Amino acid sequence: MHRTKVKVLEGVLDANDTIARANRDDFDRADVTVVNLMSSPGAGKTSLLEAVIQRLDGVRIGVLEGDVQGTQDSERISGVHTPSGAHVPVAQINTDPSFGGECHLDANMVRSALSSLPLAELDLLVIENVGNLVCPAEFKVGEDIRAMVCSVTEGEDKPYKYPLMFRACELVIVNKIDLLPHLDFDLDELLGGVDDVNPGVEVLLTSARTGEGVDAVRDWLASRVAREPQLA
Amino acid sequence: MHRTKVKVLEGVLDANDTIARANRDDFDRADVTVVNLMSSPGAGKTSLLEAVIQRLDGVRIGVLEGDVQGTQDSERISGVHTPSGAHVPVAQINTDPSFGGECHLDANMVRSALSSLPLAELDLLVIENVGNLVCPAEFKVGEDIRAMVCSVTEGEDKPYKYPLMFRACELVIVNKIDLLPHLDFDLDELLGGVDDVNPGVEVLLTSARTGEGVDAVRDWLASRVAREPQLA
Repeated sequence: MHRTKVKVLEGVLDANDTIARANRDDFDRADVTVVNLMSSPGAGKTSLLEAVIQRLDGVRIGVLEGDVQGTQDSERISGVHTPSGAHVPVAQINTDPSFGGECHLDANMVRSALSSLPLAELDLLVIENVGNLVCPAEFKVGEDIRAMVCSVTEGEDKPYKYPLMFRACELVIVNKIDLLPHLDFDLDELLGGVDDVNPGVEVLLTSARTGEGVDAVRDWLASRVAREPQLA
Repeated sequence: MHRTKVKVLEGVLDANDTIARANRDDFDRADVTVVNLMSSPGAGKTSLLEAVIQRLDGVRIGVLEGDVQGTQDSERISGVHTPSGAHVPVAQINTDPSFGGECHLDANMVRSALSSLPLAELDLLVIENVGNLVCPAEFKVGEDIRAMVCSVTEGEDKPYKYPLMFRACELVIVNKIDLLPHLDFDLDELLGGVDDVNPGVEVLLTSARTGEGVDAVRDWLASRVAREPQLA
């Protein structure tokens, strides 16, 4: 039974990779750098994006929201603007009912949403994946970069319990650090675990709530866009 | 493509239900009440179980831990004891590598672990599922009761974004309430959402850290065991 399951999964992932490559070609043609942003439910992906957008001029950002149900996140992103007053193009994918209630985005779902986004007018597209530390790491969607948010409220053991996710990412954002004084949480233990599972991975500490560390996330993202960034 | 995927999923769920019924028969024969406990990663399922065990006499509890990788949780449960000094039987399922790294427990995984647990000596078995708000709600494992932990750090919007999970449960434990003074979080909004998605569902507020509300969880669990509970 195990072998059949693995075989089926490999077939699904092969098909997914083909569509992911087509997405990637479209992103490359439009000169858009694409970030696949992942985390547990409620780790703060949307709050962090809101905070980044409010500090981001000179890089034209768009957001693709992925959720099982609901449009809360795309509405939140629609409600914020950059320092120069620009609102951000945003599209929403719901995996339920359109895609069987899947617990992750896949390349086909992202492909279905591309026509809703003005790719030619973007430098950076952030795809906010479904909140889940397992399957999103297995499905490429055509991104250039995979990044994750890990909240300090989730405990120090997460890198060891969800190693595939921590290993898949080239940036780990440790969020909600404003809560550290109120938690029994050993930040060094988490950071040690992250480095154990993915040696040398970049780590940024943030509080989307207070704004601490958000400039560093903005600068990291800006440094990754294909064209020369024009930060104010 | 969508229709095929749904059909495949239905087939998988049918096969799963058959094994779940076999598990259920075994649990019934042993007179064990079984709780499938679910949540996001890091919502506090294990901490809450530790706190419950430390307050639980008169009900013989066992724990089955589900994780993608690692044995941190089963080690933690092994380390605590009841007020009368009894340690708790615990077994660990890792979905990776044994079960393809699945993001949830299914009936077959639970079945494979049953021989590791002294069912005949238990009144209550808590199955701690993989941390994930999506797929665990879709796979019955032979449980009598489904319950979930939802942390106040995850935001108020979770019932609307993961309605299947909130709807599947007959108990929602809202955990980490000791952090409420430090969060921009509207508890009434969360509770409204929970009741919207699953009207009348039982809700308990807890802090596994301070112990607040843990007695109520213990009493709720004790009230559900098949034989007459003998609480101190």
